[in-house]
Amino acid sequence: MKILVNPARGEWKSELARPVQKSKDIEKIVKPIMRKVKRQGDKALKKFALEYDHVSIKNLLVSREEIATAKLLVSEELQKAIIQAKVNIEKFHEAQQTPDLIMETMEGVTCMRKTVGIQKVGLYIPGGTAPLFSTVLMLGIPANIAGCEEIVLCTPPNKEGNIHPAILFTADLIGIDKIIKVGGAQAVAAMTYGTESVPSVDKIFGPGNQYVTAAKQLAVKKGVAIDMPAGPSEVLVYADESAIPSFVASDLLSQAEHGIDSQVILVASSEKIAQRVMQEVNTQVEKLARKEIAKRALENSVAVVIPNQDKAIDLINDYAPEHLIICVNEADEEDVVSRIKNAGSVFIGNFTPESAGDYASGTNHTLPTYGYARNYSGVSLDSFTKKITYQKISEKGIQNIGPTIEIMAENELLEAHKNAVTIRLNYLKENQ
Amino acid sequence: MKILVNPARGEWKSELARPVQKSKDIEKIVKPIMRKVKRQGDKALKKFALEYDHVSIKNLLVSREEIATAKLLVSEELQKAIIQAKVNIEKFHEAQQTPDLIMETMEGVTCMRKTVGIQKVGLYIPGGTAPLFSTVLMLGIPANIAGCEEIVLCTPPNKEGNIHPAILFTADLIGIDKIIKVGGAQAVAAMTYGTESVPSVDKIFGPGNQYVTAAKQLAVKKGVAIDMPAGPSEVLVYADESAIPSFVASDLLSQAEHGIDSQVILVASSEKIAQRVMQEVNTQVEKLARKEIAKRALENSVAVVIPNQDKAIDLINDYAPEHLIICVNEADEEDVVSRIKNAGSVFIGNFTPESAGDYASGTNHTLPTYGYARNYSGVSLDSFTKKITYQKISEKGIQNIGPTIEIMAENELLEAHKNAVTIRLNYLKENQ
Repeated sequence: MKILVNPARGEWKSELARPVQKSKDIEKIVKPIMRKVKRQGDKALKKFALEYDHVSIKNLLVSREEIATAKLLVSEELQKAIIQAKVNIEKFHEAQQTPDLIMETMEGVTCMRKTVGIQKVGLYIPGGTAPLFSTVLMLGIPANIAGCEEIVLCTPPNKEGNIHPAILFTADLIGIDKIIKVGGAQAVAAMTYGTESVPSVDKIFGPGNQYVTAAKQLAVKKGVAIDMPAGPSEVLVYADESAIPSFVASDLLSQAEHGIDSQVILVASSEKIAQRVMQEVNTQVEKLARKEIAKRALENSVAVVIPNQDKAIDLINDYAPEHLIICVNEADEEDVVSRIKNAGSVFIGNFTPESAGDYASGTNHTLPTYGYARNYSGVSLDSFTKKITYQKISEKGIQNIGPTIEIMAENELLEAHKNAVTIRLNYLKENQ
Repeated sequence: MKILVNPARGEWKSELARPVQKSKDIEKIVKPIMRKVKRQGDKALKKFALEYDHVSIKNLLVSREEIATAKLLVSEELQKAIIQAKVNIEKFHEAQQTPDLIMETMEGVTCMRKTVGIQKVGLYIPGGTAPLFSTVLMLGIPANIAGCEEIVLCTPPNKEGNIHPAILFTADLIGIDKIIKVGGAQAVAAMTYGTESVPSVDKIFGPGNQYVTAAKQLAVKKGVAIDMPAGPSEVLVYADESAIPSFVASDLLSQAEHGIDSQVILVASSEKIAQRVMQEVNTQVEKLARKEIAKRALENSVAVVIPNQDKAIDLINDYAPEHLIICVNEADEEDVVSRIKNAGSVFIGNFTPESAGDYASGTNHTLPTYGYARNYSGVSLDSFTKKITYQKISEKGIQNIGPTIEIMAENELLEAHKNAVTIRLNYLKENQ
């Protein structure tokens, strides 16, 4: 992790460049997978399970028995923790509900807006080294609150053909009963096209490796919506002399351990702080089980020293971090936070580690990475809904607004649009 | 427009299939355009203006003088109509503001959510046969309310190198001063990469032909967000015996005149109603200036007779129309409306023509077509914002929530995530 002192504005982009993602080669591998699942359905899913997960799956759908057994395999301590996290996440996402909007814009012209749950949603939970039951909470809870009628969860089986018990426990806890043993691009394909076991869905959520990401992009071309474009996870910590260096280092490392393509950025108000944090990083990283991953991620990473606060905030907004931790003295805190324009989620103060939001505080952990915080929001209740507008115009109302519409339509040379009003106005003239 | 009586559920999809869109060939034309604009900037834009718009453009940016002159060329009547529409659209979109959310999910754990305007947005307004000043209102007004810092408007010049005065008048009315004379895929390319005259933006909005649509899709690959996937416009009218056939016909035609690839669907509760509407369509279409376009669109269109209301509603939700007009007897109206799950915008009753929402009632006219009403909302204030979450945890708070995070992180095998909490809890133990 190199230290850059006061780099010129023109260098920000190149110095803080994120690891490049190659998508073309991956697409070439994923396209035939999508095609096979479309044509062969479950048969293809079982074939891919054998090929990629090295397991022969009889029933793709997880049975009630498997779910019941799973509960016995999750420690009481972990069950309690998951339930606590669920309570917090539910509170914060329930509070995101949008009230119906109804107003008369002119006399007799009533406009409305209602929020309706997307009918069928698919949640992808990756397998791999860790069982991401936290992501089951982050996606399943808002899907429930939104009133999605069908929630499908796809996740890859292990070599014994099982799903990690903590994932089954969590899914069951929030009432998801359609859990399918399928991972990778083939899971996304199944939710896109539908198979005998997997219903097709309207929107696909969830993280995944490059194959899953590529498959989600292809799903978009087939009319399925996705949560957001994906990229490796990242954190930016903005620290001044009030930050505790060992805390900052622990936050940088909790991002670095995610993967070798993760990026962590420290923006420090002085070289002294940057040096002290670096020392702590070097000490703490050695103790980590995933230290080899973290060290590789640190190679993509940089500490930037920017004494000027305005300039530091500009750099942060330019970079648009997925996670932003702000540890500045209390007098400045509110002002600095209020000037953040581009970030996925913001963690304020010395006692707010990113992992709080990753797991249990209540905010969602599915966030825009790779600079997409400029133009995308993280997953929220909104992600599982769409908003439909309505209008009802009375006889009086069309008489009020009709002439305006007629003139505008005429000037846009859309005669039939005008006629739709004129015919009504004439009818009212004749029948009054 | 053929009449189908009570088609089986299995036939809905094929009978109501939308006109196919070919994107591959278009992409081949658009890619080199994007590349040239990226490399040559304004020079490429001027070259394309010569090639496609048959005009030599000196200054791509519309001058203050041009805007001042435009105002003199717009009739007072049209000015008044545009101002009235603006008032209504502003009212309805201002009411869409989301209040900040702040809550303590546990003692000492404060979670927040704020709405922040996307910094730089680009609005594309097509040229062609009609000057779509209404779209300037529909995109520019919410962009303003959202607090977008930079709003760029691109629209193609005519053969004299001018922009239609009504477009300039409307843009000026809502305070957009960066109006660029550039159309087609090259406009989207300019807003994606930026040129000397056109700033790059974070999100691109607006309708357009197939080239514009293809360019927007390519822009997405470059990290720019877009409003929604595009498709030809469509309306579905659901009419029972209480509907006035001439009104229904006028609404069907006001959609059919949009383009030869538009689709209009009538769902009628009886064959008699369908027949009477068809008669009216055949009479009214002959009087239209755009009758050739409308007739071609009617070839893609179908009247479906479904006496059973439940089944009719199922068909509507399956089709997911961009515009849905509901003309049923008043006793059923509320119930029918409440059961609509998939639609862009809903128009209720005999005196609510679609053109009201297209122009002036207050709702937005940029809506999901082509079945995307299943998984996308229309453009609203939300489209111009992103929601950022925040959290601040106190010393007491991390002591409350810390153990939950530690257990979850440990079970996801993310040790550094756990450490970020442990190091803080230990610090507090030592310093208390």
